[in-house]
Amino acid sequence: MQNESEVAVLRLGHRPGRDNRMTTHVGLTARALGADRVILDGASGPAETIEDITERFGGPFEVQVTESPKGVLRNWDGVVVHLTMYGERVQDVEGTIRECHASGEPVLIVVGAEKVSFDVYEAADWNVGVTNQPHSEVAGLAVFLDRLFEGRELDREWDDADQHVVPMPTGKKVVPAEEE
Amino acid sequence: MQNESEVAVLRLGHRPGRDNRMTTHVGLTARALGADRVILDGASGPAETIEDITERFGGPFEVQVTESPKGVLRNWDGVVVHLTMYGERVQDVEGTIRECHASGEPVLIVVGAEKVSFDVYEAADWNVGVTNQPHSEVAGLAVFLDRLFEGRELDREWDDADQHVVPMPTGKKVVPAEEE
Repeated sequence: MQNESEVAVLRLGHRPGRDNRMTTHVGLTARALGADRVILDGASGPAETIEDITERFGGPFEVQVTESPKGVLRNWDGVVVHLTMYGERVQDVEGTIRECHASGEPVLIVVGAEKVSFDVYEAADWNVGVTNQPHSEVAGLAVFLDRLFEGRELDREWDDADQHVVPMPTGKKVVPAEEE
Repeated sequence: MQNESEVAVLRLGHRPGRDNRMTTHVGLTARALGADRVILDGASGPAETIEDITERFGGPFEVQVTESPKGVLRNWDGVVVHLTMYGERVQDVEGTIRECHASGEPVLIVVGAEKVSFDVYEAADWNVGVTNQPHSEVAGLAVFLDRLFEGRELDREWDDADQHVVPMPTGKKVVPAEEE
Protein backbone atom coordinates (compact mmCIF):
# COMPACT_ATOMS: atom_id res chain seq x y z
CA MET A 1 0.00 0.00 0.00
CA GLN A 2 3.08 2.24 -0.27
CA ASN A 3 2.75 5.57 -2.10
CA GLU A 4 -0.96 5.74 -1.49
CA SER A 5 -2.77 7.91 0.99
CA GLU A 6 -3.57 6.61 4.45
CA VAL A 7 -6.57 4.37 5.06
CA ALA A 8 -7.81 4.32 8.66
CA VAL A 9 -10.75 2.52 10.22
CA LEU A 10 -12.75 4.16 13.02
CA ARG A 11 -14.75 1.76 15.18
CA LEU A 12 -17.67 3.60 16.79
CA GLY A 13 -19.92 2.70 19.69
CA HIS A 14 -17.86 -0.02 21.33
CA ARG A 15 -19.55 -1.33 24.47
CA PRO A 16 -16.87 -2.68 26.83
CA GLY A 17 -17.18 -6.41 27.43
CA ARG A 18 -20.12 -7.08 25.15
CA ASP A 19 -18.38 -5.84 21.99
CA ASN A 20 -14.79 -6.88 22.74
CA ARG A 21 -14.65 -9.75 20.33
CA MET A 22 -16.35 -7.94 17.43
CA THR A 23 -14.13 -4.89 17.95
CA THR A 24 -11.04 -7.11 17.96
CA HIS A 25 -12.21 -8.67 14.70
CA VAL A 26 -12.77 -5.21 13.19
CA GLY A 27 -9.20 -4.23 14.11
CA LEU A 28 -7.59 -7.46 12.90
CA THR A 29 -9.55 -7.31 9.65
CA ALA A 30 -8.43 -3.71 9.12
CA ARG A 31 -4.82 -4.81 9.62
CA ALA A 32 -4.97 -7.99 7.51
CA LEU A 33 -6.76 -6.34 4.59
CA GLY A 34 -4.53 -3.35 4.07
CA ALA A 35 -5.63 -0.47 6.31
CA ASP A 36 -2.84 1.48 7.98
CA ARG A 37 -4.51 2.19 11.29
CA VAL A 38 -7.51 1.40 13.45
CA ILE A 39 -8.98 3.96 15.83
CA LEU A 40 -10.99 2.47 18.68
CA ASP A 41 -13.58 4.28 20.72
CA GLY A 42 -12.23 3.60 24.24
CA ALA A 43 -11.53 -0.12 23.83
CA SER A 44 -8.29 -0.97 25.58
CA GLY A 45 -8.72 -4.78 25.68
CA PRO A 46 -9.14 -5.16 21.91
CA ALA A 47 -6.31 -2.65 21.38
CA GLU A 48 -3.89 -4.88 23.28
CA THR A 49 -4.89 -7.96 21.30
CA ILE A 50 -4.45 -6.19 17.97
CA GLU A 51 -1.07 -4.78 19.03
CA ASP A 52 0.04 -8.23 20.13
CA ILE A 53 -0.84 -9.68 16.72
CA THR A 54 1.03 -6.85 15.00
CA GLU A 55 4.12 -7.55 17.11
CA ARG A 56 4.04 -11.23 16.21
CA PHE A 57 2.91 -11.10 12.58
CA GLY A 58 4.28 -7.73 11.49
CA GLY A 59 3.26 -4.28 10.40
CA PRO A 60 3.31 -1.41 9.93
CA PHE A 61 -0.10 -1.09 11.54
CA GLU A 62 -1.13 1.41 14.16
CA VAL A 63 -3.73 0.99 16.91
CA GLN A 64 -5.08 4.15 18.47
CA VAL A 65 -7.59 4.52 21.32
CA THR A 66 -9.61 7.72 21.41
CA GLU A 67 -12.04 9.15 23.92
CA SER A 68 -13.42 11.46 21.24
CA PRO A 69 -14.48 9.56 18.12
CA LYS A 70 -16.63 12.51 17.05
CA GLY A 71 -13.49 14.67 17.18
CA VAL A 72 -11.68 12.20 14.92
CA LEU A 73 -14.55 12.41 12.45
CA ARG A 74 -14.78 16.20 12.60
CA ASN A 75 -11.06 16.77 12.18
CA TRP A 76 -10.37 14.16 9.50
CA ASP A 77 -8.36 15.70 6.68
CA GLY A 78 -9.64 13.58 3.80
CA VAL A 79 -12.77 11.65 2.87
CA VAL A 80 -15.07 9.79 5.25
CA VAL A 81 -16.86 6.56 4.26
CA HIS A 82 -19.49 5.27 6.67
CA LEU A 83 -20.43 1.63 6.11
CA THR A 84 -24.15 1.09 6.72
CA MET A 85 -26.86 -1.14 5.28
CA TYR A 86 -28.88 2.02 4.56
CA GLY A 87 -26.24 3.57 2.31
CA GLU A 88 -25.60 3.72 -1.41
CA ARG A 89 -24.62 0.47 -3.09
CA VAL A 90 -20.89 -0.20 -2.85
CA GLN A 91 -20.77 -1.29 -6.49
CA ASP A 92 -22.10 2.15 -7.50
CA VAL A 93 -19.70 4.33 -5.49
CA GLU A 94 -16.50 2.32 -5.02
CA GLY A 95 -14.92 3.66 -8.22
CA THR A 96 -15.21 7.29 -7.10
CA ILE A 97 -13.86 6.49 -3.64
CA ARG A 98 -10.98 4.56 -5.20
CA GLU A 99 -10.11 7.62 -7.31
CA CYS A 100 -10.08 9.85 -4.23
CA HIS A 101 -7.75 7.42 -2.52
CA ALA A 102 -5.47 7.19 -5.57
CA SER A 103 -5.33 10.97 -5.83
CA GLY A 104 -3.89 11.19 -2.32
CA GLU A 105 -6.92 11.79 -0.12
CA PRO A 106 -6.67 9.98 3.22
CA VAL A 107 -9.70 7.71 3.67
CA LEU A 108 -11.46 7.20 7.02
CA ILE A 109 -13.78 4.19 7.06
CA VAL A 110 -16.33 4.32 9.87
CA VAL A 111 -17.97 1.14 11.21
CA GLY A 112 -20.48 1.20 14.02
CA ALA A 113 -21.44 -1.39 16.60
CA GLU A 114 -25.22 -1.14 17.04
CA LYS A 115 -27.07 2.15 16.50
CA VAL A 116 -25.09 4.94 14.87
CA SER A 117 -26.28 8.49 15.50
CA PHE A 118 -27.56 10.59 12.64
CA ASP A 119 -24.70 13.10 12.75
CA VAL A 120 -22.35 10.32 11.56
CA TYR A 121 -24.52 9.88 8.45
CA GLU A 122 -24.28 13.63 7.90
CA ALA A 123 -20.53 13.85 8.56
CA ALA A 124 -19.77 11.10 6.03
CA ASP A 125 -18.90 11.95 2.44
CA TRP A 126 -20.40 8.59 1.53
CA ASN A 127 -22.74 6.29 3.37
CA VAL A 128 -22.09 2.93 1.72
CA GLY A 129 -23.93 -0.37 1.89
CA VAL A 130 -22.11 -3.63 1.23
CA THR A 131 -25.53 -4.96 0.32
CA ASN A 132 -28.58 -3.29 1.85
CA GLN A 133 -29.09 -6.34 4.04
CA PRO A 134 -28.36 -6.74 7.74
CA HIS A 135 -25.22 -8.79 8.28
CA SER A 136 -21.91 -7.90 9.95
CA GLU A 137 -19.73 -4.81 10.22
CA VAL A 138 -16.71 -7.12 9.96
CA ALA A 139 -17.96 -8.59 6.68
CA GLY A 140 -18.81 -5.15 5.28
CA LEU A 141 -15.37 -3.79 6.18
CA ALA A 142 -13.63 -6.81 4.65
CA VAL A 143 -15.44 -6.58 1.31
CA PHE A 144 -15.01 -2.79 1.21
CA LEU A 145 -11.24 -2.98 1.79
CA ASP A 146 -10.78 -5.78 -0.76
CA ARG A 147 -12.63 -3.67 -3.32
CA LEU A 148 -10.91 -0.38 -2.41
CA PHE A 149 -7.49 -1.98 -2.90
CA GLU A 150 -8.67 -4.22 -5.77
CA GLY A 151 -7.05 -7.25 -4.18
CA ARG A 152 -3.54 -5.76 -3.97
CA GLU A 153 -3.77 -5.94 -0.17
CA LEU A 154 -3.54 -9.74 -0.42
CA ASP A 155 0.01 -9.47 -1.74
CA ARG A 156 1.35 -7.06 0.84
CA GLU A 157 4.51 -7.89 2.74
CA TRP A 158 4.94 -7.47 6.47
CA ASP A 159 7.82 -5.80 8.28
CA ASP A 160 9.28 -6.77 11.66
CA ALA A 161 7.30 -9.96 12.07
CA ASP A 162 8.44 -12.62 14.53
CA GLN A 163 6.71 -15.36 12.63
CA HIS A 164 5.30 -16.04 9.25
CA VAL A 165 2.69 -18.52 7.99
CA VAL A 166 3.69 -20.42 4.87
CA PRO A 167 0.62 -21.14 2.70
CA MET A 168 0.01 -24.90 2.50
CA PRO A 169 -2.51 -27.15 0.73
CA THR A 170 -2.92 -29.17 3.97
CA GLY A 171 -1.69 -28.58 7.50
CA LYS A 172 -0.01 -25.70 9.28
CA LYS A 173 3.45 -24.29 8.70
CA VAL A 174 4.68 -21.38 10.79
CA VAL A 175 8.33 -20.32 10.56
CA PRO A 176 10.42 -17.61 12.23
CA ALA A 177 10.22 -14.59 9.95
CA GLU A 178 13.94 -14.46 9.10
CA GLU A 179 14.04 -18.08 7.87
CA GLU A 180 11.76 -17.52 4.91
CA MET B 1 -27.39 -17.07 -8.10
CA GLN B 2 -29.97 -19.00 -10.15
CA ASN B 3 -28.76 -21.79 -12.45
CA GLU B 4 -25.61 -22.29 -10.42
CA SER B 5 -24.83 -25.10 -8.04
CA GLU B 6 -25.58 -24.74 -4.35
CA VAL B 7 -23.19 -22.88 -2.05
CA ALA B 8 -23.52 -23.78 1.63
CA VAL B 9 -21.56 -22.57 4.64
CA LEU B 10 -20.78 -24.95 7.50
CA ARG B 11 -19.95 -23.26 10.80
CA LEU B 12 -17.85 -25.60 12.96
CA GLY B 13 -17.03 -25.55 16.66
CA HIS B 14 -19.72 -23.21 17.92
CA ARG B 15 -19.53 -22.79 21.69
CA PRO B 16 -23.01 -21.92 23.02
CA GLY B 17 -23.18 -18.47 24.60
CA ARG B 18 -19.61 -17.43 23.93
CA ASP B 19 -19.83 -17.77 20.13
CA ASN B 20 -23.47 -16.75 19.58
CA ARG B 21 -22.75 -13.37 18.11
CA MET B 22 -19.93 -14.52 15.81
CA THR B 23 -22.01 -17.47 14.62
CA THR B 24 -24.95 -15.16 13.93
CA HIS B 25 -22.64 -12.91 11.90
CA VAL B 26 -21.34 -15.92 9.96
CA GLY B 27 -24.91 -16.91 9.08
CA LEU B 28 -26.07 -13.40 8.16
CA THR B 29 -22.95 -12.86 6.05
CA ALA B 30 -23.56 -16.15 4.25
CA ARG B 31 -27.12 -15.02 3.50
CA ALA B 32 -26.31 -11.44 2.48
CA LEU B 33 -23.41 -12.41 0.23
CA GLY B 34 -25.07 -15.06 -1.86
CA ALA B 35 -24.82 -18.45 -0.16
CA ASP B 36 -27.94 -20.60 -0.29
CA ARG B 37 -27.71 -22.19 3.13
CA VAL B 38 -25.89 -22.11 6.45
CA ILE B 39 -25.38 -25.24 8.51
CA LEU B 40 -24.77 -24.61 12.20
CA ASP B 41 -23.15 -27.00 14.61
CA GLY B 42 -25.84 -27.13 17.32
CA ALA B 43 -26.52 -23.38 17.59
CA SER B 44 -30.22 -22.82 18.03
CA GLY B 45 -30.07 -19.18 19.23
CA PRO B 46 -28.19 -17.90 16.17
CA ALA B 47 -30.41 -20.08 13.92
CA GLU B 48 -33.51 -18.26 15.19
CA THR B 49 -31.96 -14.83 14.61
CA ILE B 50 -30.92 -15.71 11.05
CA GLU B 51 -34.37 -17.15 10.27
CA ASP B 52 -36.01 -14.04 11.65
CA ILE B 53 -33.90 -11.82 9.35
CA THR B 54 -34.77 -14.05 6.37
CA GLU B 55 -38.48 -13.72 7.15
CA ARG B 56 -38.23 -9.95 7.30
CA PHE B 57 -35.72 -9.24 4.52
CA GLY B 58 -36.35 -12.17 2.19
CA GLY B 59 -34.80 -15.30 0.79
CA PRO B 60 -34.51 -17.94 -0.35
CA PHE B 61 -32.01 -18.84 2.37
CA GLU B 62 -31.99 -21.95 4.48
CA VAL B 63 -30.77 -22.36 8.05
CA GLN B 64 -30.00 -25.88 9.21
CA VAL B 65 -28.83 -27.05 12.64
CA THR B 66 -26.85 -30.28 12.75
CA GLU B 67 -25.58 -32.41 15.61
CA SER B 68 -23.11 -34.07 13.23
CA PRO B 69 -20.99 -31.52 11.37
CA LYS B 70 -18.44 -34.24 10.56
CA GLY B 71 -21.24 -36.19 8.89
CA VAL B 72 -22.11 -33.14 6.77
CA LEU B 73 -18.47 -32.89 5.70
CA ARG B 74 -18.12 -36.60 4.99
CA ASN B 75 -21.32 -36.86 2.98
CA TRP B 76 -21.00 -33.64 0.99
CA ASP B 77 -21.61 -34.34 -2.69
CA GLY B 78 -19.39 -31.64 -4.17
CA VAL B 79 -16.26 -29.71 -3.26
CA VAL B 80 -15.22 -28.62 0.22
CA VAL B 81 -13.37 -25.35 0.85
CA HIS B 82 -12.01 -24.83 4.37
CA LEU B 83 -11.11 -21.21 5.15
CA THR B 84 -8.00 -21.04 7.32
CA MET B 85 -5.05 -18.67 7.70
CA TYR B 86 -2.74 -21.66 7.09
CA GLY B 87 -4.18 -22.46 3.66
CA GLU B 88 -3.25 -21.67 0.09
CA ARG B 89 -3.64 -18.06 -0.98
CA VAL B 90 -7.18 -17.27 -2.12
CA GLN B 91 -5.88 -15.31 -5.10
CA ASP B 92 -4.07 -18.47 -6.31
CA VAL B 93 -6.96 -20.95 -6.04
CA GLU B 94 -10.17 -18.95 -6.42
CA GLY B 95 -10.25 -19.37 -10.22
CA THR B 96 -10.25 -23.17 -9.99
CA ILE B 97 -12.92 -23.18 -7.28
CA ARG B 98 -15.03 -20.79 -9.36
CA GLU B 99 -14.80 -23.17 -12.31
CA CYS B 100 -15.95 -26.10 -10.15
CA HIS B 101 -18.91 -24.03 -9.01
CA ALA B 102 -19.76 -22.93 -12.54
CA SER B 103 -19.59 -26.53 -13.78
CA GLY B 104 -22.32 -27.52 -11.32
CA GLU B 105 -20.39 -28.81 -8.29
CA PRO B 106 -22.07 -27.86 -4.99
CA VAL B 107 -19.60 -25.94 -2.82
CA LEU B 108 -19.38 -26.37 0.95
CA ILE B 109 -17.43 -23.57 2.65
CA VAL B 110 -16.23 -24.52 6.14
CA VAL B 111 -15.44 -21.87 8.76
CA GLY B 112 -14.28 -22.75 12.25
CA ALA B 113 -14.59 -20.93 15.55
CA GLU B 114 -11.30 -21.47 17.42
CA LYS B 115 -9.22 -24.62 16.86
CA VAL B 116 -10.23 -26.81 13.95
CA SER B 117 -9.22 -30.47 14.10
CA PHE B 118 -6.78 -31.85 11.58
CA ASP B 119 -9.30 -34.16 9.92
CA VAL B 120 -11.11 -31.06 8.59
CA TYR B 121 -7.90 -29.98 6.84
CA GLU B 122 -7.69 -33.48 5.34
CA ALA B 123 -11.36 -33.65 4.36
CA ALA B 124 -11.19 -30.33 2.49
CA ASP B 125 -10.49 -30.21 -1.24
CA TRP B 126 -8.92 -26.81 -0.61
CA ASN B 127 -7.66 -25.16 2.53
CA VAL B 128 -7.76 -21.49 1.62
CA GLY B 129 -6.32 -18.43 3.33
CA VAL B 130 -7.89 -15.02 2.81
CA THR B 131 -4.45 -13.69 3.71
CA ASN B 132 -2.21 -15.83 5.90
CA GLN B 133 -2.79 -13.42 8.77
CA PRO B 134 -4.97 -13.92 11.83
CA HIS B 135 -8.18 -11.91 11.53
CA SER B 136 -11.82 -13.00 11.45
CA GLU B 137 -13.75 -15.94 10.05
CA VAL B 138 -16.54 -13.49 9.18
CA ALA B 139 -14.14 -11.34 7.14
CA GLY B 140 -12.62 -14.37 5.42
CA LEU B 141 -16.05 -15.72 4.50
CA ALA B 142 -17.18 -12.32 3.17
CA VAL B 143 -14.17 -11.84 0.90
CA PHE B 144 -14.31 -15.44 -0.28
CA LEU B 145 -18.01 -15.21 -1.25
CA ASP B 146 -17.54 -11.85 -3.00
CA ARG B 147 -14.70 -13.37 -5.03
CA LEU B 148 -16.48 -16.67 -5.71
CA PHE B 149 -19.49 -14.83 -7.14
CA GLU B 150 -17.37 -12.01 -8.64
CA GLY B 151 -19.66 -9.38 -7.14
CA ARG B 152 -22.87 -10.69 -8.75
CA GLU B 153 -24.20 -11.46 -5.26
CA LEU B 154 -24.50 -7.70 -4.66
CA ASP B 155 -27.20 -7.46 -7.33
CA ARG B 156 -29.35 -10.35 -6.18
CA GLU B 157 -33.04 -9.84 -5.58
CA TRP B 158 -34.92 -11.15 -2.58
CA ASP B 159 -38.19 -13.05 -2.55
CA ASP B 160 -40.92 -12.88 0.07
CA ALA B 161 -39.47 -9.97 2.02
CA ASP B 162 -41.66 -7.95 4.38
CA GLN B 163 -39.45 -4.91 4.07
CA HIS B 164 -36.82 -3.51 1.81
CA VAL B 165 -34.05 -0.95 2.38
CA VAL B 166 -33.81 1.72 -0.31
CA PRO B 167 -30.15 2.77 -0.80
CA MET B 168 -29.72 6.44 0.20
CA PRO B 169 -26.83 8.93 0.21
CA THR B 170 -27.86 10.05 3.73
CA GLY B 171 -30.38 8.69 6.19
CA LYS B 172 -32.48 5.54 6.37
CA LYS B 173 -35.33 4.51 4.13
CA VAL B 174 -37.14 1.25 4.74
CA VAL B 175 -40.33 0.48 2.82
CA PRO B 176 -42.78 -2.43 2.81
CA ALA B 177 -41.52 -4.81 0.12
CA GLU B 178 -44.57 -4.53 -2.16
CA GLU B 179 -44.35 -0.73 -2.39
CA GLU B 180 -41.04 -0.67 -4.22
